[in-house]
Amino acid sequence: MKIKIVDLRSDTVTLPTEEMRTAMAGAKVGDDVYGEDPTVKELEATAASLVGKEAALFVPSGTMGNQLAVLTHTERGDEVILDSEAHIYCYEVGAPALLAGVQLRPVSRLLSEQGPSVLRQALRPADLHFPRTSLVCLENTFNRGGGTVLSPRVMAEIYDLARQQGLRVHLDGARIFNAAVALNVDVKVFTCCCDSLMFCLSKGLAAPVGSLLAGSRDFIQRARKYRKALGGGMRQAGVLAAAGLVALKMVDRLAEDHSHARRLAEGMARLPGLKVDLARVQTNIVVAEVPAPGTAAHLVSELHRRGIKCAAFGPGTIRLVTHKDVSAADIDYTLQVMAEILG
Amino acid sequence: MKIKIVDLRSDTVTLPTEEMRTAMAGAKVGDDVYGEDPTVKELEATAASLVGKEAALFVPSGTMGNQLAVLTHTERGDEVILDSEAHIYCYEVGAPALLAGVQLRPVSRLLSEQGPSVLRQALRPADLHFPRTSLVCLENTFNRGGGTVLSPRVMAEIYDLARQQGLRVHLDGARIFNAAVALNVDVKVFTCCCDSLMFCLSKGLAAPVGSLLAGSRDFIQRARKYRKALGGGMRQAGVLAAAGLVALKMVDRLAEDHSHARRLAEGMARLPGLKVDLARVQTNIVVAEVPAPGTAAHLVSELHRRGIKCAAFGPGTIRLVTHKDVSAADIDYTLQVMAEILG
Amino acid sequence: MKIKIVDLRSDTVTLPTEEMRTAMAGAKVGDDVYGEDPTVKELEATAASLVGKEAALFVPSGTMGNQLAVLTHTERGDEVILDSEAHIYCYEVGAPALLAGVQLRPVSRLLSEQGPSVLRQALRPADLHFPRTSLVCLENTFNRGGGTVLSPRVMAEIYDLARQQGLRVHLDGARIFNAAVALNVDVKVFTCCCDSLMFCLSKGLAAPVGSLLAGSRDFIQRARKYRKALGGGMRQAGVLAAAGLVALKMVDRLAEDHSHARRLAEGMARLPGLKVDLARVQTNIVVAEVPAPGTAAHLVSELHRRGIKCAAFGPGTIRLVTHKDVSAADIDYTLQVMAEILG
Amino acid sequence: MKIKIVDLRSDTVTLPTEEMRTAMAGAKVGDDVYGEDPTVKELEATAASLVGKEAALFVPSGTMGNQLAVLTHTERGDEVILDSEAHIYCYEVGAPALLAGVQLRPVSRLLSEQGPSVLRQALRPADLHFPRTSLVCLENTFNRGGGTVLSPRVMAEIYDLARQQGLRVHLDGARIFNAAVALNVDVKVFTCCCDSLMFCLSKGLAAPVGSLLAGSRDFIQRARKYRKALGGGMRQAGVLAAAGLVALKMVDRLAEDHSHARRLAEGMARLPGLKVDLARVQTNIVVAEVPAPGTAAHLVSELHRRGIKCAAFGPGTIRLVTHKDVSAADIDYTLQVMAEILG
Repeated sequence: MKIKIVDLRSDTVTLPTEEMRTAMAGAKVGDDVYGEDPTVKELEATAASLVGKEAALFVPSGTMGNQLAVLTHTERGDEVILDSEAHIYCYEVGAPALLAGVQLRPVSRLLSEQGPSVLRQALRPADLHFPRTSLVCLENTFNRGGGTVLSPRVMAEIYDLARQQGLRVHLDGARIFNAAVALNVDVKVFTCCCDSLMFCLSKGLAAPVGSLLAGSRDFIQRARKYRKALGGGMRQAGVLAAAGLVALKMVDRLAEDHSHARRLAEGMARLPGLKVDLARVQTNIVVAEVPAPGTAAHLVSELHRRGIKCAAFGPGTIRLVTHKDVSAADIDYTLQVMAEILG
Repeated sequence: MKIKIVDLRSDTVTLPTEEMRTAMAGAKVGDDVYGEDPTVKELEATAASLVGKEAALFVPSGTMGNQLAVLTHTERGDEVILDSEAHIYCYEVGAPALLAGVQLRPVSRLLSEQGPSVLRQALRPADLHFPRTSLVCLENTFNRGGGTVLSPRVMAEIYDLARQQGLRVHLDGARIFNAAVALNVDVKVFTCCCDSLMFCLSKGLAAPVGSLLAGSRDFIQRARKYRKALGGGMRQAGVLAAAGLVALKMVDRLAEDHSHARRLAEGMARLPGLKVDLARVQTNIVVAEVPAPGTAAHLVSELHRRGIKCAAFGPGTIRLVTHKDVSAADIDYTLQVMAEILG
Repeated sequence: MKIKIVDLRSDTVTLPTEEMRTAMAGAKVGDDVYGEDPTVKELEATAASLVGKEAALFVPSGTMGNQLAVLTHTERGDEVILDSEAHIYCYEVGAPALLAGVQLRPVSRLLSEQGPSVLRQALRPADLHFPRTSLVCLENTFNRGGGTVLSPRVMAEIYDLARQQGLRVHLDGARIFNAAVALNVDVKVFTCCCDSLMFCLSKGLAAPVGSLLAGSRDFIQRARKYRKALGGGMRQAGVLAAAGLVALKMVDRLAEDHSHARRLAEGMARLPGLKVDLARVQTNIVVAEVPAPGTAAHLVSELHRRGIKCAAFGPGTIRLVTHKDVSAADIDYTLQVMAEILG
Repeated sequence: MKIKIVDLRSDTVTLPTEEMRTAMAGAKVGDDVYGEDPTVKELEATAASLVGKEAALFVPSGTMGNQLAVLTHTERGDEVILDSEAHIYCYEVGAPALLAGVQLRPVSRLLSEQGPSVLRQALRPADLHFPRTSLVCLENTFNRGGGTVLSPRVMAEIYDLARQQGLRVHLDGARIFNAAVALNVDVKVFTCCCDSLMFCLSKGLAAPVGSLLAGSRDFIQRARKYRKALGGGMRQAGVLAAAGLVALKMVDRLAEDHSHARRLAEGMARLPGLKVDLARVQTNIVVAEVPAPGTAAHLVSELHRRGIKCAAFGPGTIRLVTHKDVSAADIDYTLQVMAEILG
């Protein structure tokens, strides 16, 4: 008997749709290092327009998009301000120091209503002992915050302050379309508050591979050179871009993931031994506290034994992420299995 | 009237085959960052076995494969010996200094019969003033050498000497299968003479995207971490790997490219105003001198006007590369157009 | 009328003693890059013995000593755990990222009684997304902590934990002799709890230039090479080392600085508008809160107008440092002037 | 019986003069990190004026001065053109890659009459595959060239070409005063042909420690920050600067070193088994070929046994350097010992 699998570890596990597969098989391609892949060019133009930037660059991963932004906005020896729970600080293998030679300055609660005042306090005067601060990195939705949306108003205030101080702002918008769908606004409401952004075609949008970095024409031209140096220049990349073009038409489907996450969160909140801050369940991520010490890992492993995959997110917390390949029925089944384990 | 296009700039322009497109559309995929993409795993295992190494890693480009090797074999501040015409030195955007913090020590004629003695002379004693030398990079076939094959005997001598000196050897084998086909030997005859190698699935093998880095299990594990830092970790990369698996079955077709290159070279050698060293036309690359000063750029542009694309390779030299999408008829047509221009 | 100057900004302003000047003028010297300066060699041997390490290296500044330690203990791409108020993080111009390519992981209260548990929580499991953690940096006395002493017991616990986890520990001991004098213990009580340490000959010990990095013979040999690369290899450095040898005999005089700081702190605690946590005045540094908003900068400038120099240490805090060139009478005068301003 | 020692390994071994020692003992000093050391400021102003630049910066070594120039003139990922025998490439521990993340592009005969055309050929067009070239490094006198002088005319041509191409020029002028004395011209004849230069106070000028980096005010301000990051910020550095000020008055004495070198070279040219290119003996360095294979090391060791120290400079070459602590009698004695060994 085959066990039913519900994979809630991350929306990165989404499989490409049939339409994507067909598009990949039929894609017109060329050598993109020579700038001759028409499908890549179409994707880059479409993406730039969608987020209201002059230009965009196709990259093999969100990490590469973020790192190209760090490389392009800074000089070696600079300092970058970001949230102490930001993906760039926590999950990108220390790449900003390795690749760009920049020091990260993690600060608490940058990605919150207090963001602007947090940024103000993190600024340092020019001094021989301090690195120059040149960049602020935001993240929206905020993964380790539980998929929360940083409001356009807060983003705008941070961006204003940054510009007054001569700082650039990069947005790690891996899931920026989740933010737009959650607030039911045009994504440009967010993307107008940054100098550059990266967003992913994989994750909720289900493309197999690829992210986009967007910004000014000059910024993208310089990022393209760094992409070559990092080995992100791909040849007939149109086969991937074709799937990406399909993904860009799937933004509306994220609402379903959000509705599933809400249903899951509300169900979990009713279970004994779990605490869910429902106010923070704003998109497709559910973070739950498992108050008894050490039980997060135990719960993860019990769920896993029963075919339900999720991730411990620290010693007393678990994270579950909804996505295209999780149905409403899967959510109900997950809640039922949880009830059995915890009951 | 549409002009006939013959693109001899590089074998990187090859388009994927129908079989590749079908394979991509039907590929079984998973999240390769979690190690769960079966097609990527199959490709990596197949590739490792083919080149006689313990393990392999799928990367989005040859440059990334080479740079991962440099990062993994060296410590920051080390020195790397390579040929002064090597791709890693000439065409990888200065990445070894940028990413790995290592100094390149280019030496003339490392990729020649004199290689072993050139290497011996490049070695420096331990001294406070000298960086530690930790790596030698070879390249086979040798692109700027005109696609020439570095003989297994020379490679073995270099590898022996390197090992005696405690140096690692990495092979930029972007076109290593061209070398094997040219000598009609198993590719392992070459790959046994290095600690790691990178080879490309694109170029003559026609896959749209991707290269493989191969080496010991420990080496690949450490390279995998650097790949993540560089942003080379891709999600459902099996769509690309599926094409790569097809490419690995197409090695024998490289013989055709070699035969076309020979035909082209012999034809060019008979034309006025061109000099071709036929002894150096060993694989799919033809380098010709255009002796009159400044005429290389002129010839390239005249050919281009007539639909034949090739590249100036310095002020008095042009390079033409044969590949899957160039037929015998294209070669004849190219020669005819050249004769018209030069006659 | 010349105004009386009392410079309490930092103990870095100490002037060399007459004995030092005489020693410098008469020093036996040689070319230390060739390892032939007898005075440098004597200083390095004396220093190593004093702190109980196999070897020591003379460097032109504390920053260089710390950065050499970071370079030598880590590989590029690693992560270094330190206190979020540590000098290496706050005042060394972002050098760990610039020079070593390592990411700093600042954590609150590492340099406190909670240090061991703080460290335990900062450890991360091996994971593809995380940089490898290889080093913990401590600081004793703790400058931004107000010159507080990290107890030998806490240091020992941290060192034990670090070793269990395969981490190295470096001690920024710029003022480690202040810690030893404060507790009236042999400095080795502290220095046995680290793999390497840097301490300064300038500051309270009054040498004009120089610090020492100490550790195992192998560590120092590798650090020596990095020193050369950074440009810290000096020729007839014995002229500086001669002053350093005098400085090492002046450790006991630090008690006087501590007594002056205590007198100053107690006097300030009695003044209106100032708050001093006397429990934290353990060595030669006095940190006072100036509770009314914005007044720290004002107080610093009023004091400066009257010849008393000290530093704002954030918006509501000032720092005063006692040293060789500040007498008991200077302290009383300072308190009197403060009383006039604040009264 | 004590053996007479003549140390011709390098002019770095020169001992400070009595006047220097007296100046050091009596120097007015302050905290130079705060910009308060009057002697350092005087030295920097004097030096800047002497070489015709707006500003200068005191650094602990020539290597640091050169590396600060590389850091300040370039961005990470750039390429630097220099002679394949330049000190920065051969003897600075690979620091440009380690610290600045830049790739060196060594070219033969840049430091020769052919320099301008060599530079012209080394220039590459803008291309995605090439690093940006931003800096040319010259060296005068040219150490591995045998202390030869690069003529002001050649320097001017190179500087003109560089400026046309948007490149900066840095001069490793460790021994630039030797060049000026050799041609009997004002040093500004050379220093007007570069954007920045480093020159040493040690070597022939006999100061114990220190070099100066000179350039525009803005350049020096940015270099000062990098100096702090590298750990080159020293506190009461006036003790060293005092000796440096004495050194700057000793430029004329270099003529004596040159005359000794000439006498030595002419004597050696007459000895059997040695070949000296007298045309290349232009300053204080004598390079001699020892034609019989393997005999350079042997000769060095035989001389050493008799108290005469010099250096092998490759397998068949020795280098001897005259300086303040070598007298005419020492030269004659050296020739006599050589004659005994070789005769």
